[in-house]
Amino acid sequence: MTDLSKGAAWMGGQIIPIADAAIPVTDWGLTHSDIAYDVVPVWHGAFFRLDDYVTRFIASLTAGRYDIGMDHAAICAALHDMVAASGLSDAYVAMVAARGRNPVAGSRNPRDCDNHFYAWCVPYVHIVKPEAATKGTSVWIAKSVRRIPADSVNPRVKNYHWGDFTSGLFEAKDRGFETTLLLDHAGNVTEGPGFNIFAVFGDRVVTSDHGVLHGITRRTVLEMCAEAGLATETRALPLEEFWEADEVFLSSSGGGVIPVAQVDERHFSNGAAGPVATGLRARYFDWIMRDEHRTPVRTS
Amino acid sequence: MTDLSKGAAWMGGQIIPIADAAIPVTDWGLTHSDIAYDVVPVWHGAFFRLDDYVTRFIASLTAGRYDIGMDHAAICAALHDMVAASGLSDAYVAMVAARGRNPVAGSRNPRDCDNHFYAWCVPYVHIVKPEAATKGTSVWIAKSVRRIPADSVNPRVKNYHWGDFTSGLFEAKDRGFETTLLLDHAGNVTEGPGFNIFAVFGDRVVTSDHGVLHGITRRTVLEMCAEAGLATETRALPLEEFWEADEVFLSSSGGGVIPVAQVDERHFSNGAAGPVATGLRARYFDWIMRDEHRTPVRTS
Repeated sequence: MTDLSKGAAWMGGQIIPIADAAIPVTDWGLTHSDIAYDVVPVWHGAFFRLDDYVTRFIASLTAGRYDIGMDHAAICAALHDMVAASGLSDAYVAMVAARGRNPVAGSRNPRDCDNHFYAWCVPYVHIVKPEAATKGTSVWIAKSVRRIPADSVNPRVKNYHWGDFTSGLFEAKDRGFETTLLLDHAGNVTEGPGFNIFAVFGDRVVTSDHGVLHGITRRTVLEMCAEAGLATETRALPLEEFWEADEVFLSSSGGGVIPVAQVDERHFSNGAAGPVATGLRARYFDWIMRDEHRTPVRTS
Repeated sequence: MTDLSKGAAWMGGQIIPIADAAIPVTDWGLTHSDIAYDVVPVWHGAFFRLDDYVTRFIASLTAGRYDIGMDHAAICAALHDMVAASGLSDAYVAMVAARGRNPVAGSRNPRDCDNHFYAWCVPYVHIVKPEAATKGTSVWIAKSVRRIPADSVNPRVKNYHWGDFTSGLFEAKDRGFETTLLLDHAGNVTEGPGFNIFAVFGDRVVTSDHGVLHGITRRTVLEMCAEAGLATETRALPLEEFWEADEVFLSSSGGGVIPVAQVDERHFSNGAAGPVATGLRARYFDWIMRDEHRTPVRTS
């Protein structure tokens, strides 16, 4: 038996160790960053909101004109087979569509490429270590870059254009911060590498609606707020208003709700995890165990 | 002997067939499009302006904080070895630095990744077929997207963030145009997929200086203009002014100077290749054969 405990990939119908999964250096997925992807978490043996993630992935395929020759059921079957083979009960599961290669040498025509699907999974990823998340993490607002505008690259099609995030991450790490948050060109807060951001004002919870991925965890937060009796607003969030928040937190499929104790030199909620974020964090770990959100991995 | 006639790659000091060259699906070069690259042409057995291309590549490595552990001479040696092994006398030669993988699972810290270098070559690529280039090609100005701004992703660090270009190429191909040109958010013309653009007004030649790659072929054009007694201006080029040009042409290391006969529904130089562009195209194919610009491939 091949050891898949460090992760597995599904490529062309074969399940292989993650270390062997590679794509050609001439694939437009790489050379043009011409990829749409999505990530669904597996927690305690079940996918969380699998249909929602796959539905968003398929919407990205349509928007980006990728034809992978697989429908919703076929994608789900590949993910089930791969995760089951890996033996992982808590996993980060990526589904990816790449433009592929053009059969005509030198052609720049994206319509002729051999689009293809692949998937991979690794042990569950926390974008902020749980110990740090519980205390409240630190966020640096990038100064050298602004978020790539929606009319250059559509952020609602989950993509690998991370150059702006990477510049922000270098700034953050150079200053000892955990992660980074990007502003748009109008000075509104947008999102960071792998997460949406929320600001809490009393019993109102606000998150950006423009120039950001509409994260499934973001949606989960909005639904959990409704259940918890918190009002929500999805709209532009100017930085000046953001500074006045009582609390700040992140949402990510890699860790759920992550309280923020510090942004730049500003401490929120007395430099600790705030009560609203802490409550939503606990509620998230409850929600991902609710049967109605869970699709157990089929271990046929 | 392995057949390298379709192309070769240099990876970790080994020279392999292009079809076997791949990078891991978890390399940040792919998942974050975290790559700096450059492309140098080989023509009739010699690199064109090799030192200029490698110097620009190294400037990109510095700006992007990639440490590949190879200096100018080592990079050149790898390119020589690879192209010589391929047997190609006319080639498109890519040199690539990728961020690599992070040894800590789940880490988002770009400072800890194992940066790496690789290279690959394929038979020479014309971004526009020579027959079409001689007659004058067609360019569609993208309507649905604007060029990624320089304060989101630095266009002077040659990179794979092509989402905006790909959207423009779909628009162009859907309408029967050869390629696409992108505007910036202020309405100036910028660049297209793999080329800079020039507008000719009498004996003045104008090209954008902002939000674009400073192409080596662009530099060659500016130098050839000086030799030919044409004035040059590098500055913002508003679309309104662009429409008034007598001629338009592209520059690319994949084909040199490429006359443009049509942009959207507007025909330039009577719908044919203009005389200035045609003259510069011929001069380019002369320049790439001049000894002072050539570094013969070492076939040790």
